[in-house]
Amino acid sequence: MQIVKTISEVRRLILHARNAGKTIGFVPTMGALHKGHLSLIRASRKECGFSVVSIFVNPAQFGPKEDYQEYPKDLKRDTRLIEKEGADLIFAPESTEIYPEGYQTYVEVQKFPQGLCGKYRPGHFQGVATVVLKLFHIVSPDRAYFGWKDAQQLLIIKKMVEDLNLSIKVIGLPTVREKDGLAMSSRNQYLSPEERKSAPLLYKNLKNVKRTVETKQKSLKEALKETQKNLNKNPLVKLQYLEAVDLKKLETVKKDTRGKILVALAAFLGSTRLIDNIIIHVGSRKIS
Amino acid sequence: MQIVKTISEVRRLILHARNAGKTIGFVPTMGALHKGHLSLIRASRKECGFSVVSIFVNPAQFGPKEDYQEYPKDLKRDTRLIEKEGADLIFAPESTEIYPEGYQTYVEVQKFPQGLCGKYRPGHFQGVATVVLKLFHIVSPDRAYFGWKDAQQLLIIKKMVEDLNLSIKVIGLPTVREKDGLAMSSRNQYLSPEERKSAPLLYKNLKNVKRTVETKQKSLKEALKETQKNLNKNPLVKLQYLEAVDLKKLETVKKDTRGKILVALAAFLGSTRLIDNIIIHVGSRKIS
Repeated sequence: MQIVKTISEVRRLILHARNAGKTIGFVPTMGALHKGHLSLIRASRKECGFSVVSIFVNPAQFGPKEDYQEYPKDLKRDTRLIEKEGADLIFAPESTEIYPEGYQTYVEVQKFPQGLCGKYRPGHFQGVATVVLKLFHIVSPDRAYFGWKDAQQLLIIKKMVEDLNLSIKVIGLPTVREKDGLAMSSRNQYLSPEERKSAPLLYKNLKNVKRTVETKQKSLKEALKETQKNLNKNPLVKLQYLEAVDLKKLETVKKDTRGKILVALAAFLGSTRLIDNIIIHVGSRKIS
Repeated sequence: MQIVKTISEVRRLILHARNAGKTIGFVPTMGALHKGHLSLIRASRKECGFSVVSIFVNPAQFGPKEDYQEYPKDLKRDTRLIEKEGADLIFAPESTEIYPEGYQTYVEVQKFPQGLCGKYRPGHFQGVATVVLKLFHIVSPDRAYFGWKDAQQLLIIKKMVEDLNLSIKVIGLPTVREKDGLAMSSRNQYLSPEERKSAPLLYKNLKNVKRTVETKQKSLKEALKETQKNLNKNPLVKLQYLEAVDLKKLETVKKDTRGKILVALAAFLGSTRLIDNIIIHVGSRKIS
């Protein structure tokens, strides 16, 4: 496995693999890898002949008051984990390699970022879409892997790829969880032991929404209201949003919305912001 | 030569050419071809094994009060001209093929569009950048050809390609002119015989700026002021802007700006908006 820092070098190695007839799989990350990332690399390894992992903490997707400077970095540990999964190439550029002086081009998906996290992190998804498009151009993958934990991100990237006519298959893989249900996240390491104990509440409540709505014990509206109340009871949890949107247009669910619905939340535990989500099925047809 | 309307078909034919080892050249146009366009096709033919011309009047780059509906269309005539130049493929999609329902992704180059035409056509260059990026993804050319007549457009596209790490060589070719100096433009056909007679004034004045500044008869500031006055004397010409910017950053020229300078203008002749430009060299080194 090779670790490279420059665009020209990563291009050269990928061209070599492509000329050898290999399919290129790509897993973009911000490092601080956990089992969720590793499941993406594993899928790429299984489906593609040449797997590229990028490690880049993208300044463009952090707000001025967010944790860009503090974001955990441990390239040695990440490298060891990626190598163990059998990936072929790590691309770990400096920020000036990606955003050189005079940089000024940004991609905007306009509607999908309006609700959920996008509402609370202005500019975040523009930063995500821009860096992912750049990485797609650099790596030119056939397949790219993202986790469902960042559902809105996944759906925005799928939309961007569709709208901009990129020939890349974007694959979303299930959220990997701790035994107690907490979604794996690089930010979990910020949690105090107390906060860590409360963190599984988030997914527990999401599962409860799914169960009560799908078995028609409660309407979605009622279930969300109750969940909000439940979560706010815990003094360590500060809910930022709990929202239900349809999976096709990411629009707030109305009374007559049917089909797959994304129920997503963000909450602060202390100063750590965690997100999670679940997909539920509303409608007369079979409940998945 | 083939004419196709769908993205899937154009992709199939280009993949075929690429698999045969051919270099792909691309000339994006809005149709209503003139000798300027034909010079681009000729360059592509000379340098590439497979030349693609797109014809698409891009709604996203027209303002609400601009001439989108009236923009001249003559696919038969365009096809004949392109075939004569020996291009291999015309891509002439409907607008729903490029912007299907739910479309919502746009690219923005942030600084380069701030002056010149960008100031008077808000959103124009976002529309241009977006459609060109989409066409680049669809056609995946090695080389793409644009005219210097639309200098700001050319420089914005070059910047986008650089910033987004596209592996495409963007080539700018000289403005093709009528015998009397008027820059070829699809919009020249809108001009009344009277307006047509006044139109060469634009380039005549630009050449005068170049001459007087490069021979140090006048400062750039003086020359621009005089030109503005000159052009405003003609009752048929309504100058929108006459501006000088450095060619690297497209920033308004200051007293100490040296090197290549783009002097550009836009003017209305009746309701027809024409643009033109010239490059001058300011500085102590040899004047080009």
